[in-house]
Amino acid sequence: MIDCDVHNDWSTAEVLLPYLDDYFRDFLIRGEKPGPRGTFPRAQRAWLHPEGFRRQDINPVTQDDHYNLMKEHLLDKYDIDVAILTGDETLDISTIANRYYGNALASAYNNWVIDEWLSRDRRLKGSIVIYSPDPENAAAEIRRVGEHPDMVQIIMSSGSIRPYGDPFYHPIWEAASQMNLPIAVHLGGQAGINTQTFSSGPPTFYWEAHALLCQAGMSHVASTIAHGVFEKWPNTYLILTECGVSWFPTVLWRLDNDYRALRKETPWLKRLPSEYARDHIRLTTQPLENPDNKQHLWNVLETFDAKHTLLFSSDYPHWDFDDPTKIPIPADWRENILDANARQVYSRLPARDSKSHS
Amino acid sequence: MIDCDVHNDWSTAEVLLPYLDDYFRDFLIRGEKPGPRGTFPRAQRAWLHPEGFRRQDINPVTQDDHYNLMKEHLLDKYDIDVAILTGDETLDISTIANRYYGNALASAYNNWVIDEWLSRDRRLKGSIVIYSPDPENAAAEIRRVGEHPDMVQIIMSSGSIRPYGDPFYHPIWEAASQMNLPIAVHLGGQAGINTQTFSSGPPTFYWEAHALLCQAGMSHVASTIAHGVFEKWPNTYLILTECGVSWFPTVLWRLDNDYRALRKETPWLKRLPSEYARDHIRLTTQPLENPDNKQHLWNVLETFDAKHTLLFSSDYPHWDFDDPTKIPIPADWRENILDANARQVYSRLPARDSKSHS
Repeated sequence: MIDCDVHNDWSTAEVLLPYLDDYFRDFLIRGEKPGPRGTFPRAQRAWLHPEGFRRQDINPVTQDDHYNLMKEHLLDKYDIDVAILTGDETLDISTIANRYYGNALASAYNNWVIDEWLSRDRRLKGSIVIYSPDPENAAAEIRRVGEHPDMVQIIMSSGSIRPYGDPFYHPIWEAASQMNLPIAVHLGGQAGINTQTFSSGPPTFYWEAHALLCQAGMSHVASTIAHGVFEKWPNTYLILTECGVSWFPTVLWRLDNDYRALRKETPWLKRLPSEYARDHIRLTTQPLENPDNKQHLWNVLETFDAKHTLLFSSDYPHWDFDDPTKIPIPADWRENILDANARQVYSRLPARDSKSHS
Repeated sequence: MIDCDVHNDWSTAEVLLPYLDDYFRDFLIRGEKPGPRGTFPRAQRAWLHPEGFRRQDINPVTQDDHYNLMKEHLLDKYDIDVAILTGDETLDISTIANRYYGNALASAYNNWVIDEWLSRDRRLKGSIVIYSPDPENAAAEIRRVGEHPDMVQIIMSSGSIRPYGDPFYHPIWEAASQMNLPIAVHLGGQAGINTQTFSSGPPTFYWEAHALLCQAGMSHVASTIAHGVFEKWPNTYLILTECGVSWFPTVLWRLDNDYRALRKETPWLKRLPSEYARDHIRLTTQPLENPDNKQHLWNVLETFDAKHTLLFSSDYPHWDFDDPTKIPIPADWRENILDANARQVYSRLPARDSKSHS
């Protein structure tokens, strides 16, 4: 079983201090942060979670607890073969304005995750964090750590200053293609310089906002397809992590229909939007929409071959964690969604039978 | 048959001159507009349609042609009982910054449509255009013309400065409730002061943008429900016009799920979001998503009782007009979607058997 969204948190962002030079160490120790000393210097979201993000039963005290609790409550409990670490506060790196600081924090995180997590347990794999508002330097960071065999994807927040197919971001796609790494766009980053996460302006409540966060995924799907990202870099994948699932066919139907009528705008495309999506876009399961009548969800999933499109994710240790034994998908889809699909997209994952624990 | 989205265009916006006082007449004659003299003074969209908005076969020359062509190509051809006029350029009134001018243009349009359209043909019904960024004056305009028996709804653009459940807009809902009129939110207004129509910032191409315009509908659904609009004004309806359809169940599932987890944020709500939606939100059909496999669309429509939620619309005379004889819905839903549902929501429409033409 492969879990594509496991958050490796820290007790204090000051674990990054050994990976920063003096100039930025000073920023991290003395500079403004959204919480007390030790918080990561991201912009704070306008939508404050009314409960807090972490599961109430996961309470790390020491730094080692983060791994030990993950081992106990996720890796061993569910016999996870591969857990793809997606960071935690670090995802919001895209929200700060200072690009020099952003790039330094991204590099510091990547070095720290290699030293402190990937070396600890062979089941753990890493995501290369980049500061996406500076695509040239983000591409350089992808090339700097992209050769590490346990780095299996690049990660950016769904909140962004533009949709990710825009040519502004093409240096990132170029580097991803060169390193043969998929790009995960993970829910987050709806703050700071990413001023337009929500259509029609800011919602009011956390639950209202959370329900609408799938909108960013819709925009990135449309943009990467329309700008021909998958024509230019045919070995790349876009993985939408935690952006929801059941909106996907609607967007593809709309894109196909509008493309058919007005395709003269984008003559570099050779196939229907839904065909690019089938071959290049994947969605992680958590949070899978959850109607009372599960057949209603399945009716929607069947319209876009979800059996081959979804990748299991638990979102451990967050408040809306999904237990892999309980996700509401048809039984004969489980082998694909919980394992095989991820091994196809993440080219660096071991083949099924070479499973081994630390 | 009732068509809930029929655009009554003009040959020149100067038809409004007799309905403006000298101060604003000067603005309309001499002031800046997005096109030549006679264009309506809205902000221009950043997404330029690569073909133009009007059907190629509808080419009015004189002002009378607008009605005569509508009569020939829509009203008589399809034996339409009621055509709800939704304006055309006027919908983008919400995009201009000058609220005094916006309010004056809204009143001028409403007087013009009463004089020039509603008096011409008993099948035609009107929508009260308001300048939504100024809710107090918009509410006054609703009360000013809301007694007219042929005005059957209020209309605003889907592009807005905030989502429409926000208390900023409550004077509009209060007036709608008082006049017992539904509020239609029609696709448009993605320009000018409505800077955040799209999640994740501006898309690039018209077809890409058009496919994503449903995002605004999602935000207005979430906002009106979360702020308790339908608890406060239980006789009101939100009608999403031209915002698409098949995204609707996804949003309701997400809202229900997130509300269940975090409902303490909105203690004024007494029911699930999907229950408010069932009783208070309707969607017009054009553009109905159109997958190659129609059963896929129907699978989605069945999850939210589309038979009782959809209202037929043709979007005449726009480029993506839907022929009422060809919309892909199950045969036994047609009576509801093409007629009965609208008569339930539009309380001022005549009962079925009192059908009469001009």
